[in-house]
Amino acid sequence: MNCVGHINHGLWTHPRDQSHRFNQLSYWTELAQILEKGLFDGLFLADITGAYDVYANNIDLTLRESVQLPSHDPAPVISAMAAVTQHLSFGVTVNLSYELPYQFARRFATLDHLTEGRLAWNIVTGYLDSAQKLVGQDRLQAHDQRYDQAEDFLTLCYRFWEGSWEDDALQIDKQARRFADPDKVHYIQHQGPFYQSQGVFQVAPSKQRTPVLFQAGASPRGLAFATRHAECIFIGGDKIEHIQKQVQKIRELTVQQGRPVDAIKIFLGCTVVSAESSSLARDKFIEYQQYASPEAGLAHFSGSIGLDLSQFAEDDVIPYRNTNSIVSVNQKFKQQDITLADLKAQHPLGGRYPVIIGSGAEVAEQLIDLFDQTGIDGFNLTRTVSPESHLDFVQWVIPELQQRGRYKTAYQDGSLRQKLFAQGDHLHPTHPADQYRCQPSAQVNDQQQKRA
Amino acid sequence: MNCVGHINHGLWTHPRDQSHRFNQLSYWTELAQILEKGLFDGLFLADITGAYDVYANNIDLTLRESVQLPSHDPAPVISAMAAVTQHLSFGVTVNLSYELPYQFARRFATLDHLTEGRLAWNIVTGYLDSAQKLVGQDRLQAHDQRYDQAEDFLTLCYRFWEGSWEDDALQIDKQARRFADPDKVHYIQHQGPFYQSQGVFQVAPSKQRTPVLFQAGASPRGLAFATRHAECIFIGGDKIEHIQKQVQKIRELTVQQGRPVDAIKIFLGCTVVSAESSSLARDKFIEYQQYASPEAGLAHFSGSIGLDLSQFAEDDVIPYRNTNSIVSVNQKFKQQDITLADLKAQHPLGGRYPVIIGSGAEVAEQLIDLFDQTGIDGFNLTRTVSPESHLDFVQWVIPELQQRGRYKTAYQDGSLRQKLFAQGDHLHPTHPADQYRCQPSAQVNDQQQKRA
Repeated sequence: MNCVGHINHGLWTHPRDQSHRFNQLSYWTELAQILEKGLFDGLFLADITGAYDVYANNIDLTLRESVQLPSHDPAPVISAMAAVTQHLSFGVTVNLSYELPYQFARRFATLDHLTEGRLAWNIVTGYLDSAQKLVGQDRLQAHDQRYDQAEDFLTLCYRFWEGSWEDDALQIDKQARRFADPDKVHYIQHQGPFYQSQGVFQVAPSKQRTPVLFQAGASPRGLAFATRHAECIFIGGDKIEHIQKQVQKIRELTVQQGRPVDAIKIFLGCTVVSAESSSLARDKFIEYQQYASPEAGLAHFSGSIGLDLSQFAEDDVIPYRNTNSIVSVNQKFKQQDITLADLKAQHPLGGRYPVIIGSGAEVAEQLIDLFDQTGIDGFNLTRTVSPESHLDFVQWVIPELQQRGRYKTAYQDGSLRQKLFAQGDHLHPTHPADQYRCQPSAQVNDQQQKRA
Repeated sequence: MNCVGHINHGLWTHPRDQSHRFNQLSYWTELAQILEKGLFDGLFLADITGAYDVYANNIDLTLRESVQLPSHDPAPVISAMAAVTQHLSFGVTVNLSYELPYQFARRFATLDHLTEGRLAWNIVTGYLDSAQKLVGQDRLQAHDQRYDQAEDFLTLCYRFWEGSWEDDALQIDKQARRFADPDKVHYIQHQGPFYQSQGVFQVAPSKQRTPVLFQAGASPRGLAFATRHAECIFIGGDKIEHIQKQVQKIRELTVQQGRPVDAIKIFLGCTVVSAESSSLARDKFIEYQQYASPEAGLAHFSGSIGLDLSQFAEDDVIPYRNTNSIVSVNQKFKQQDITLADLKAQHPLGGRYPVIIGSGAEVAEQLIDLFDQTGIDGFNLTRTVSPESHLDFVQWVIPELQQRGRYKTAYQDGSLRQKLFAQGDHLHPTHPADQYRCQPSAQVNDQQQKRA
């Protein structure tokens, strides 16, 4: 995230942490080069609109510990990182509720060009009241209506990305003075319940056309939306059984949507603390804990669930509250009473992700176990001390995974989508975007439309 | 512009022209390095939403000659160029009619951080019908209402950029665990006729806070707006007297707005063809002409004035049409009858800017004459064959300007605003944004507001 404190809060105070340099390009270009050296598929940039103002009904702790505040726009850092790498991809969260679809589609198509097909979009529909006030929308929309709007937004994006320019519309023929062939460029027409547009998309087809689509929806409506549109899904969880269930559910729903069972790659969020040996990793974890702020983690969590956790004592049971945003938490609440002390204990490094601690070999074994037992496709690693935690992972864990034949030893060529699925640069034909693809010009005649 | 054909149309067909590489990062990083070698103040990226569909009532020529179509989002290329330069600044056009103010302000504040204060925004309020259809707004707003909306948009941006965080709000004190001081971060409240917002801006103050503001408004209402808000103004014109009048008018209006007479830097658009000698420059101009497309220039111009010029014969007088967008053209039309042949003759390289042709010394003398006789502050050079025309200017013209003591021989340190005005990084106190600056926290108490 283009901020200081992302998930593991308080660690910005660690003497070696560099996250306060987040507003400098060199911080990002160095990070991108570290990750590419480690053959990471991609760097994922989360984002939020608004501030966590629920805890103690103010933003004092949020500011003191920089809990995603300040938080800058993530997209502008991408081209600098793309310029110093060849293969690393860039995923970025954009909340479509706060975007105008034409401008968004144009910006992301531009980035897919500039990265030569190394772009992914994590689709979010937003949940903070403070964001609605900032962007001048009066109140949070009803949850289901947000997904109807998201459906309309995506349909329009598909029309722009897939439906306006044929694959061979760009000819760049200097002798014939023909940059683009007018017969292969089509006006789109969209009259949706939320969005309308007609015209020619200003961006010629980028390598992937539609960026790789990520989602993290967890409510029933959210999962239906995710398994319809997403090519990758982020999940959370620390118990094997809980992760297994999520994976199974996603696979089932994917098939129900008429898509291949493996159409979606599932990535599990986790935090890793690794070092040269088991005991050094444990020492490092203990050292990190001295700088972490579980309370800042609670301030973050309060914002996410819309419940002021500052009002409870250590042994108070947190009252269940129905929120659509964080289902895994609801499920936890449903299963057992949880106290504030329990919640704090779940934030050993200031964040709520499971923490794996060990030597490179130990971490590798645990990740392989998780992978094999749950059916996930990969991991989404959260940083702790930055960029140290990335450097440690590349130095200690990657070689152990490689030795076990469970991690690539070189990048494959091609776009992110090609790297992930090995089925070409474009969305799979079973994806719902397929119906919005433009037909070869032999089959259409839209000159009338053009002149209308 | 993040496109192929910008002003001088047809030159993309020149064998040495590289503008078809506009979707590659290396095209932009190389260009930025050429300009920084030439000690250019900045690279200005124009932009347009929509397509030029007025000429012959279609976009066929627009596509064949790539007349600003495809045209990609300019902002995403900035961080890659900033990463390979130290001093070059980046101006970019954004049409505020098609932006949501919070997201726009956040994106530009982020870019001002990443460039360390090398960002400028050219404020545009838009005029193409085709753009309104694309972004789903029904019709072009009345001209004056567009400026009322622009005023409200800017006021809200000033509140975000100048009014939310005090200069010393960021403390980044690891020992004291105080990243930001909550007492120095303020909620903004904006209830304007077009936009509403309340909350804390998510971006801490960037080097310049508000990016350097450019405008090119030429109508009476547009000039009033420009001289109120702009720090730099682009003008056009090829006759000394006409340029003088514009400069004089801008200086007068600036003073009327309560700002110092030199508060606004005025840049004249022009095209330069230079070479080692006078005759080689003339040869180059003739060679360029063989590739230029005056007709594509007319297609562009038709879109700008909303009049289909394809319907006229060579000696037809073009009927005057009142359009608010291009006043300099109206003035021309008012002064004399103009035929289609005249118009074409005004596009010798496919564009309507005055063309200066000569050896480095000849061009330097002409630029100095224009500068001294008109009272302008500088030039906005349009490219011809790219990047050749930039390389030529750096190789032949800059040294001649330097020899005459009329061009810097090294960059000064500091932000773009500091480089241009030598009065600090922030907007001048006489600028209207001053009233939206937050007061030092000793003088305010907004804890009540925060907790409301």
